[in-house]
Amino acid sequence: MNKHNSEPTKERLLSSGVDLFSKKGYSGVSVREICKHAETSMNMIHHYFGNKEGLLNSIIESYGQNVFVFPLKLLAKEPISRTDFFSRIELVFETTLDAYIENSLVLMITIREQKSPTSLIEYAECFKNFIAIGKQKGFVRKELDVEMITGFILDRITNQVHFASWIKSDTGADILNDQEYLKRWSKSNVDLFINGIAS
Amino acid sequence: MNKHNSEPTKERLLSSGVDLFSKKGYSGVSVREICKHAETSMNMIHHYFGNKEGLLNSIIESYGQNVFVFPLKLLAKEPISRTDFFSRIELVFETTLDAYIENSLVLMITIREQKSPTSLIEYAECFKNFIAIGKQKGFVRKELDVEMITGFILDRITNQVHFASWIKSDTGADILNDQEYLKRWSKSNVDLFINGIAS
Repeated sequence: MNKHNSEPTKERLLSSGVDLFSKKGYSGVSVREICKHAETSMNMIHHYFGNKEGLLNSIIESYGQNVFVFPLKLLAKEPISRTDFFSRIELVFETTLDAYIENSLVLMITIREQKSPTSLIEYAECFKNFIAIGKQKGFVRKELDVEMITGFILDRITNQVHFASWIKSDTGADILNDQEYLKRWSKSNVDLFINGIAS
Repeated sequence: MNKHNSEPTKERLLSSGVDLFSKKGYSGVSVREICKHAETSMNMIHHYFGNKEGLLNSIIESYGQNVFVFPLKLLAKEPISRTDFFSRIELVFETTLDAYIENSLVLMITIREQKSPTSLIEYAECFKNFIAIGKQKGFVRKELDVEMITGFILDRITNQVHFASWIKSDTGADILNDQEYLKRWSKSNVDLFINGIAS
């Protein structure tokens, strides 16, 4: 028995979608191909997702849930002290990086198709609010233009993961497999951000 | 007469390559298609660039020259004072951003094909050295891990330009056409970086 067949049909369709869309792009894959890969019949995509676009949206939304659930928890409560504020930023950075690495195939798909999951928009909003509260409480420099710098963490993390093999071939650094490098990179970039915003 | 025909054949092939590779990807374009678009005969690609890959490499290398010539000049001389050091970082950021916007189509090609022009590697090296000198001279925090943070500027700029239309549809911000936003974004991010590294 194929390993696939132990999973329910819906899950098989989702993972076949991830596999094929990340390799060939959304427009390069047919419904027939996805169903064949998932070892199910053509009407199952219609049944679970409406159509190919519905499958893509489900993949991206469930990725968003995976990736941002923990960072969103960290950002939801108001920081109670300066230490709490900065240590939560550190945790947001680390958990987002881990989640991006874990879900790198779907990250590629979101970039290629330029589709944001709802929770990415929510994350950006929560992060901005969190920093704005830090500013009100005096943890953050008064001159800081909060709206303009909230992309910092996602830009750095997105590119390290998206371009991992490119960076590896240019510089030798291997964030996907070298735990020491991962820690050093993460620590230094959180440190840059925190020093960049702190009052 | 087509506007194309006033340019020399070699230039026409380069700009047809940029146009077609950025729209359809390197592997989605044939030599025949490029020559037709450039209104020249098939053997001209062979004559000027050897083959399709030679054309791609020429496009990417000449893009690298365009984009990094001014930033490289700014980084070449040793900073003579703290003010000189930080104002040069500001200029590097602004000139790199302008050049990326100016050359956004080739930026898309380098990202899609994951090919770095020689001068990008040189830029990364020079930037790292420049910050390291700033550290030796006491302008930069002692704890700063220089190697880990030099990607900051290129990550921020690359993503703002590469994802410009995506960012616009998610947030309304339009870095390619809104000069006010461009200035505000650029100023705030330089400010974050400088505060992040300064001693």
